[in-house]
Amino acid sequence: MKRVKLTVAYDGTRYSGWQVQQNAVTIEGVLNKALSKLTGEEIAVIGASRTDAGVHAMGNVAVFDTESTIPGERFLYVLNQKMPEDIVIVASEEVPLTWHPRHQDTLKTYEYRILNAKLPDPTRRLYTNFVSFDLDIDLMRKGAAYLVGEHDFAGFCSVKTNAKTTVRTITDLQVLQKGDEIIIRVTGNGFLYNMVRIIAGVLIRVGRRYYPPEKVLALLEGRERTGEAVTAPPQGLCLMEIQYGK
Amino acid sequence: MKRVKLTVAYDGTRYSGWQVQQNAVTIEGVLNKALSKLTGEEIAVIGASRTDAGVHAMGNVAVFDTESTIPGERFLYVLNQKMPEDIVIVASEEVPLTWHPRHQDTLKTYEYRILNAKLPDPTRRLYTNFVSFDLDIDLMRKGAAYLVGEHDFAGFCSVKTNAKTTVRTITDLQVLQKGDEIIIRVTGNGFLYNMVRIIAGVLIRVGRRYYPPEKVLALLEGRERTGEAVTAPPQGLCLMEIQYGK
Repeated sequence: MKRVKLTVAYDGTRYSGWQVQQNAVTIEGVLNKALSKLTGEEIAVIGASRTDAGVHAMGNVAVFDTESTIPGERFLYVLNQKMPEDIVIVASEEVPLTWHPRHQDTLKTYEYRILNAKLPDPTRRLYTNFVSFDLDIDLMRKGAAYLVGEHDFAGFCSVKTNAKTTVRTITDLQVLQKGDEIIIRVTGNGFLYNMVRIIAGVLIRVGRRYYPPEKVLALLEGRERTGEAVTAPPQGLCLMEIQYGK
Repeated sequence: MKRVKLTVAYDGTRYSGWQVQQNAVTIEGVLNKALSKLTGEEIAVIGASRTDAGVHAMGNVAVFDTESTIPGERFLYVLNQKMPEDIVIVASEEVPLTWHPRHQDTLKTYEYRILNAKLPDPTRRLYTNFVSFDLDIDLMRKGAAYLVGEHDFAGFCSVKTNAKTTVRTITDLQVLQKGDEIIIRVTGNGFLYNMVRIIAGVLIRVGRRYYPPEKVLALLEGRERTGEAVTAPPQGLCLMEIQYGK
């Protein structure tokens, strides 16, 4: 028996998110089916991050246990031959049987991409959130600064969460301009359900001067989700990287 | 009666190209249907460029004649409300009744995007051609230089063409590096059927050292399409802009 770690990139457009569901196509489901067929075993991967429907990833992580003789680093090649073209295995390796993708210190980095232009771009509609209001990036940065550090993020979390604690640490949060896109790049030790999309939704309102930057602090200190903490749509979000042992 | 000019952006993924076909969804067909419904007339647009299936556009151009009281510049707004999200009207204006999108001097600019990386990126698969071979951009530029100017491009044209002459002028051809993408940006007074995709296909072979740069000159001077003038896949291609009165 060995444990294999996969790093997985995907276009989430076509999927009902990561997590296996009955009567819906999910990334986890596609991986389980392909791995089970490949090994002849009944494989159920364990994923690091259960991304929502429509959310993308450049580096989600999953593990599975197998008796297969295929070396860990070879799964990259054999599995990619069985993947649809919107899922790509970008790395594979054997890890200790005790290695778990969620039960340890990690730093996760997400990017939320906003297309800030007068008109939508049909070729970027699936990978950005189109915002036609002129966004003030300096105000967004001012608002973002309140979120860096260890905080109770209950005000930036879906009420559907079942997390034991709503305290998380954001180690870095940048608002970057790249041509006509504004990218919110956030790194932290963990994110609550919908947390990045709520951060993006609130910062967009700050950027269009609908909220002052100080509103971010007020929502944080309120420690309770309100209707003012709006959730930005999924397609702008991409899980970029998970760093382990940090 | 007035003539209205539309500038149209689209994601070509879902379409069987620009041109109306029976039993296939095309950009032209979608525009005709929406405009006919909007005006109550039977509208058939005339397009500047009949892009292939899977090819994208940021600025294709089309005209139509109408008795509608909607001002030319308002069509942008009313038509966008009837468009699927992968087609966007980016401009509309009234033009003289004699103005034709093909029968005059134009400069068209196309971009062909290559993702040159070790592994494919699922979120760019529909908008780039993935090439895992290491491409030498200097060799590609050397090959591209042979194509600039007025030439008989019969060797860079599908045999399916019905053009009267295969002489065209390329006014500018650049091979640009942008992160992990190589972009072939070409401007000219007209392009033969599949010409940009064949230029891209040949330059990719030059970049991977399968052809020397001088092969481009040989294919040009051969003045006949051969199997060596390979056609790159459609999804990397985007019609960026058509300039009139040049």
